[in-house]
Amino acid sequence: MMYIQRTERFSAAHQLYNPNWTPEKNDEVFGKCANRNFHGHNFTLTVTVKGKINPDTGFVMNLVDLKHIIKDHVIEKLDHKNLNTDVEFMRGKFTSTEVLAEEIWKILQPLVEEHTAKLHCIRLEETINNAVEYYGE
Amino acid sequence: MMYIQRTERFSAAHQLYNPNWTPEKNDEVFGKCANRNFHGHNFTLTVTVKGKINPDTGFVMNLVDLKHIIKDHVIEKLDHKNLNTDVEFMRGKFTSTEVLAEEIWKILQPLVEEHTAKLHCIRLEETINNAVEYYGE
Amino acid sequence: MMYIQRTERFSAAHQLYNPNWTPEKNDEVFGKCANRNFHGHNFTLTVTVKGKINPDTGFVMNLVDLKHIIKDHVIEKLDHKNLNTDVEFMRGKFTSTEVLAEEIWKILQPLVEEHTAKLHCIRLEETINNAVEYYGE
Amino acid sequence: MMYIQRTERFSAAHQLYNPNWTPEKNDEVFGKCANRNFHGHNFTLTVTVKGKINPDTGFVMNLVDLKHIIKDHVIEKLDHKNLNTDVEFMRGKFTSTEVLAEEIWKILQPLVEEHTAKLHCIRLEETINNAVEYYGE
Amino acid sequence: MMYIQRTERFSAAHQLYNPNWTPEKNDEVFGKCANRNFHGHNFTLTVTVKGKINPDTGFVMNLVDLKHIIKDHVIEKLDHKNLNTDVEFMRGKFTSTEVLAEEIWKILQPLVEEHTAKLHCIRLEETINNAVEYYGE
Amino acid sequence: MMYIQRTERFSAAHQLYNPNWTPEKNDEVFGKCANRNFHGHNFTLTVTVKGKINPDTGFVMNLVDLKHIIKDHVIEKLDHKNLNTDVEFMRGKFTSTEVLAEEIWKILQPLVEEHTAKLHCIRLEETINNAVEYYGE
Repeated sequence: MMYIQRTERFSAAHQLYNPNWTPEKNDEVFGKCANRNFHGHNFTLTVTVKGKINPDTGFVMNLVDLKHIIKDHVIEKLDHKNLNTDVEFMRGKFTSTEVLAEEIWKILQPLVEEHTAKLHCIRLEETINNAVEYYGE
Repeated sequence: MMYIQRTERFSAAHQLYNPNWTPEKNDEVFGKCANRNFHGHNFTLTVTVKGKINPDTGFVMNLVDLKHIIKDHVIEKLDHKNLNTDVEFMRGKFTSTEVLAEEIWKILQPLVEEHTAKLHCIRLEETINNAVEYYGE
Repeated sequence: MMYIQRTERFSAAHQLYNPNWTPEKNDEVFGKCANRNFHGHNFTLTVTVKGKINPDTGFVMNLVDLKHIIKDHVIEKLDHKNLNTDVEFMRGKFTSTEVLAEEIWKILQPLVEEHTAKLHCIRLEETINNAVEYYGE
Repeated sequence: MMYIQRTERFSAAHQLYNPNWTPEKNDEVFGKCANRNFHGHNFTLTVTVKGKINPDTGFVMNLVDLKHIIKDHVIEKLDHKNLNTDVEFMRGKFTSTEVLAEEIWKILQPLVEEHTAKLHCIRLEETINNAVEYYGE
Repeated sequence: MMYIQRTERFSAAHQLYNPNWTPEKNDEVFGKCANRNFHGHNFTLTVTVKGKINPDTGFVMNLVDLKHIIKDHVIEKLDHKNLNTDVEFMRGKFTSTEVLAEEIWKILQPLVEEHTAKLHCIRLEETINNAVEYYGE
Repeated sequence: MMYIQRTERFSAAHQLYNPNWTPEKNDEVFGKCANRNFHGHNFTLTVTVKGKINPDTGFVMNLVDLKHIIKDHVIEKLDHKNLNTDVEFMRGKFTSTEVLAEEIWKILQPLVEEHTAKLHCIRLEETINNAVEYYGE
């Protein structure tokens, strides 16, 4: 089993806010992340795929194909967008890095499996200090 | 003459939009940066100050003082903010990296000069690929 | 299960030395790391915590809480310190990156568990070329 | 169990090409990586070794020894070389990052085990966006 | 005067070799860089342009335009190429980072000046340790 | 005129302390940097040299020569050392980054000039947030 990784980047605005709570409770829990006018980040997404090496190519999966899958199905929908208002698959969800990683997993998993490889990990860095990793379970 | 640098980071939302233009012209010129709902970045700000080495400290200026000046007067006002709507000193201005660097210069220049040093450069990185530098003239 | 990471940095002096050995044996085994007058590093500490996403926040654990735990209980005790002489929890121990990671685990594990999350990994980078990871067993 | 890592770098030329295919098929599958005149990369190799902490040193394994093993047996053979024509252990193999990681594993595994540690992972980064990891099975 | 920067990356093979010298002299002067079968690097190109801020856009020059100029006229011709054999504008020249930076300047200078800005600096990084900068004179 | 850069790294302990002041005054001015038992950093040194391109090599100066000059005359004397007690050329001086950069300039300037190039800049990074640059005047 070999693991291959592709990293892509996107820049987006978001806000952490629980509509079932009072504004005061939101400010208390989410602090400056609850800013009503949004803030934003450069997100770094690293997708890890695992599989056997194809004896005809030396590849687990062509990274050019993986790049196109990530760009067409994830980056295109998130880059220069507002995660709370512009993104169909985040509608009604928290736009925390955790939830975003989980949703990216759901999008990419079936697409990667069309290539005889398996999705292994979604890593999402929000700043140089904060990141999440999701392994699908 | 010795040059010293301090780097601080902030995360903010913004939008590039000229209110004197039609929406179509804005989309044509600013592309996805004109998104009406905003997008965002992790900005990296590097402030360079120049001066002579103080023979009593070995410092041009105490970097702890420089850090506090930058944090109190710039980062505090920009971090987790919307540059178009939340920031007094950007009111009515383009929130391009160029204009932001120029405004940060105006804020920091008199504050640095209270410390027998001179402001030399404001460097602002918007992504790993885009940056600006301003030397005050 | 979702994994979240917080990175913090500290700068410290240390020395690798086995008091049961002769100076010559120490120099032979530890080389320039045995310098009697100490040397130092900028250490980068990445703490990974795992847990389920809280449906009220979208968080495994509030990263602001994790940041404060790490800063108050680890960084505060190590930053700008001499690991061999100034740090209570390293008293009588080797100040290798391995041992330091293990001791940081012991400190953080109970504190993280007060937050319905579990400590997963302590990663400690000593230089851009050297690092250790500890998973608690 | 403690995991320690050492990173080394090398610069090499290579080409992805399947000699059993037509030139057209090679261009179709490998794209610009099939350039007959070669292209190249700065590769970053991170070797992870696992083991127990030695109570006499505080080390899993002396990183200076690990550094020398990697430099003498891997970097020396790959740095400033053409992976397709100059490297004995890559003869007749695809010079994909996947295959290269697998071959580096085969070289380092017995050498690491002479040091009462076990090889855990070979990570090879080809660009800031592409990497592979191999865990020996 | 404001300075803006755009960074792009390319991967290429090359060889340092003076055809007027004996092979022995080439090996003596260029060392492992003279490898007859080529080696390669990931090059990082940073282009700095200077000018006044356009009051209608807040830009010195649209970075999307600068990106396209760099990609179409430089990256396209260098990426996944052999600098000694595949690149028209390097024909008969040393493929040192110095000479490459100088040639990139010659290509970009007139193209940037079509945009009421001036080319200020070509920075080219060959590895994390080696770089050159050229200011056109 | 072409500028070339070589980066080397060293790890060292130091302490900021003015022996003409009381301990209290030292603590007030230098804060945690005045720790009597020392702290330390991974320093990153970037040396910029300028000159004309030699038509026989395509080089301003062979970077291998520059690397050896820096390693033999600077890194060898600073790496894994205590800047306050182990380094002849820092004897009796503040070990601030500013003073250290100035002293490195004095060592390297005559050595670089033996190679028909001129020393242009000494850049010294103490942490990812703090750096100095010195241009010799």
